[in-house]
Amino acid sequence: MAQRIHYTNDVAAAIRRLVTQYQPSGVVWVADDNTCRLMPDACPVVTIPAGEQHKTLDAVCRIWDGLHHNGATRHTLVVNLGGGMVTDVGGMAAATFKRGVRFVNVPTTVLGAVDAAVGGKTGFNRHGLKNEIGVFAPASDVIVSTRFFDTLPRHEFKAGWGEVLKHALLSGPDHLRQVLDWNLEATAIDHDALLPLLQQSVQVKVDIVARDPHEAGEREALNLGHTVGHAIESLAMNRGNAVAHGYAVAWGLVAELVLSHLQQGLDSAVVHRVARFVRDHYGTFPFTCDDYDVLLDAMHHDKKSVNGEVRCTLLAAVGDYRVHQSVTDDDMRAALDIYRDLMD
Amino acid sequence: MAQRIHYTNDVAAAIRRLVTQYQPSGVVWVADDNTCRLMPDACPVVTIPAGEQHKTLDAVCRIWDGLHHNGATRHTLVVNLGGGMVTDVGGMAAATFKRGVRFVNVPTTVLGAVDAAVGGKTGFNRHGLKNEIGVFAPASDVIVSTRFFDTLPRHEFKAGWGEVLKHALLSGPDHLRQVLDWNLEATAIDHDALLPLLQQSVQVKVDIVARDPHEAGEREALNLGHTVGHAIESLAMNRGNAVAHGYAVAWGLVAELVLSHLQQGLDSAVVHRVARFVRDHYGTFPFTCDDYDVLLDAMHHDKKSVNGEVRCTLLAAVGDYRVHQSVTDDDMRAALDIYRDLMD
Repeated sequence: MAQRIHYTNDVAAAIRRLVTQYQPSGVVWVADDNTCRLMPDACPVVTIPAGEQHKTLDAVCRIWDGLHHNGATRHTLVVNLGGGMVTDVGGMAAATFKRGVRFVNVPTTVLGAVDAAVGGKTGFNRHGLKNEIGVFAPASDVIVSTRFFDTLPRHEFKAGWGEVLKHALLSGPDHLRQVLDWNLEATAIDHDALLPLLQQSVQVKVDIVARDPHEAGEREALNLGHTVGHAIESLAMNRGNAVAHGYAVAWGLVAELVLSHLQQGLDSAVVHRVARFVRDHYGTFPFTCDDYDVLLDAMHHDKKSVNGEVRCTLLAAVGDYRVHQSVTDDDMRAALDIYRDLMD
Repeated sequence: MAQRIHYTNDVAAAIRRLVTQYQPSGVVWVADDNTCRLMPDACPVVTIPAGEQHKTLDAVCRIWDGLHHNGATRHTLVVNLGGGMVTDVGGMAAATFKRGVRFVNVPTTVLGAVDAAVGGKTGFNRHGLKNEIGVFAPASDVIVSTRFFDTLPRHEFKAGWGEVLKHALLSGPDHLRQVLDWNLEATAIDHDALLPLLQQSVQVKVDIVARDPHEAGEREALNLGHTVGHAIESLAMNRGNAVAHGYAVAWGLVAELVLSHLQQGLDSAVVHRVARFVRDHYGTFPFTCDDYDVLLDAMHHDKKSVNGEVRCTLLAAVGDYRVHQSVTDDDMRAALDIYRDLMD
C-alpha cells in the first residue's frame, strides 16, 4: 500500500518528475467532461461523462477501450484527473488493465484530495449500490494541489470541508482550531495557508489507512459522522431533495458529537463550537421527531450495523476516537433532539 | 499470496472443512454449462456459458449479478468449479465483488489443476487479447481432485499433460521420468498414483510463483515451451485449424529443448526422449521451411519479446532453467529444422 503524496501547486512539474522516475512506455490521462479542460495540451486522454450517475461499468469500459486504442502496455502510466468519481473509476480501470498498470491520482476537488484519491479504494456502482464492484489498489502517487479549487463552486468546496472537519476531529485540538477558523466564505483562496492544512488533513487518513488497509477495524474511525450522515442522505433522497454528501457528513458530525458527549463524555464546548460552525456555513437539515423512525430505519440497514444494532465511531475527546460503539434507539433519539436544539 | 492447496479425492469433505473454518455468511458456486452437473445438490450456483469464447466481461457481469441475487455479502465464500475459464472469470468476479470476497478454486481439468487455478492470475479476454483485463488475486484455497478426470475427454487430459511435462522439465530428472512413464493411453485412471504426481507438478508452479508473484522475472520460467508454442497456435489459427493450447505447448517444448541443446548444452538424450514422448502421444504439427517467416513473425510480436528480440526460457539441464534468453532468427530456424527431423 506504499503511496506517495505530493503537495505542490505545480502539477505539471510533479508529473514530469514522475515520468522521469518511472520511465513509462507512455502516459494516458483520464478525465471527465469538466476536468478535461484542465489537461495539459497534446496528451492522450480518455474522457468519461461527469457525475455520480455515470460511475458505472460503462465508464470503466470506456477507459479500458481508450487505453487499448492509445496503445497502452503494462508499462503505461495512467493519470486520473478529477474528483472522486474519476479517481475511483480511473483507478479501477488502471488496476485491472493487463492485470494492473501504475496510476497517479490528481484530485481536482477538496473531497477528492482529502478522501477519494488517497487510500487505495477504487470501484464503481452497480445493483443500485455504491462501490459495489472494485478493488483495493493504491495510486502509486497522489498529487495534491489547491490551484484547482480556484474554480471549484463554493458549495463543492464546503462539501469537501465536511471531511476536512471530520479528519480534524479525529486528529487533535490544534488541527481542529485551524479548520474551524478557516474562512469558508472568503472569495479568494489563500493557497499558502491551505496547502499545508490540507496536507495535515490528508495525513490523518493516511495514518489510519496505513494501520488498517483492508478495513478490518480501525479504518472504521473514518466513518465518524457517517452513520447519521448517511441516514440524512437517505431521508433527503426520499423527500426527492438530495443533499451533497459532504453537507450530510457535516450535519452527521454534529449529531454524533452529541452522542459522543452523552456516551463518552466528550466536552460539550467542542459540541457547541462545531455545531455553530456547521450551522453558520452549512445551514441545517430540517427534520422533526416524526422523521426519527425513518432515520433510525436507515441506520439499522447501514452496512456498519451489526445484527441490526446501530454502530457509530464516537469521540471521548478530540483526537481520541472509539470505533464500533453500539448506540441504542433511545440514545439516538435523545441525540437527534439535542441536534435540533443546537441547529435550529 | 498465501494460498493453500488441498490434494484430495473427497471434494465435498474438503469444502465442508473450509466452511467450518471460514464461517462464511453463505456459499455461492460458479460453474459452467458442463461443470454445473458436478455440483452438490441444492447449493446456490451461478452458471456461465462454457468455452474460451465466453471468457468475456459478460460472464463476469453474470457472476456479479448472480452473487447479488443470491444475497452475497463481503463474507460470502465463492467456489469456482471448472476448468481454467471458470476459475479465471470466477476469480476475477469474486476478487472485485464488494472489493473482494474470499474464493476457492476446484479445477475440473488437468490444465486447470496444474496451471490456471493456482497462482493468483484472474481475468477475461477483451480487445481480442487473452486476459486483457484482470487482477492478481489468489484463491484462498485450491482443491485438487483427480476424480473429475474420469470423465475428461482424452485429448483434454493430454492437453493438460503438456503443462505437466513443462513443470517436470523445470523440476528435475526424477519427476521428468515419472511424467514420461505415465500411460497417457490407459483407459482407466490410477488415482492413487496420479494425485501425488499432480501434487509434485503443482508444487513446481507454486514454488516459482511464490518467488515472483507479480511476474517480475523468475515466473518467466513458466513460459518454457510457450514462445514456439504460441507461434504454432497462431499459425494453426491462420490455417483455420486451431490446435489445443496444451498440444502446442508440447510441440513448443520439443523445439525449445532443441534450442536449449544448441545454446545451453542441454543433454541431447533429454531432447530425444521428450521428442519421442510428444510424437507418440501428441503427433506432430506439420510445417515446412516456408512457414518459418510466419512463425518468426509471431514470436517477434509475442509479449515476451523485448525490442522485437525473441526471448525464450531455456534449460541448461533438466531442472536448471535460464529465463529471458535471446534467440536469433538463425538459431530459431536451425531449431525448427531439427524439430522437423525429430518429429517427422
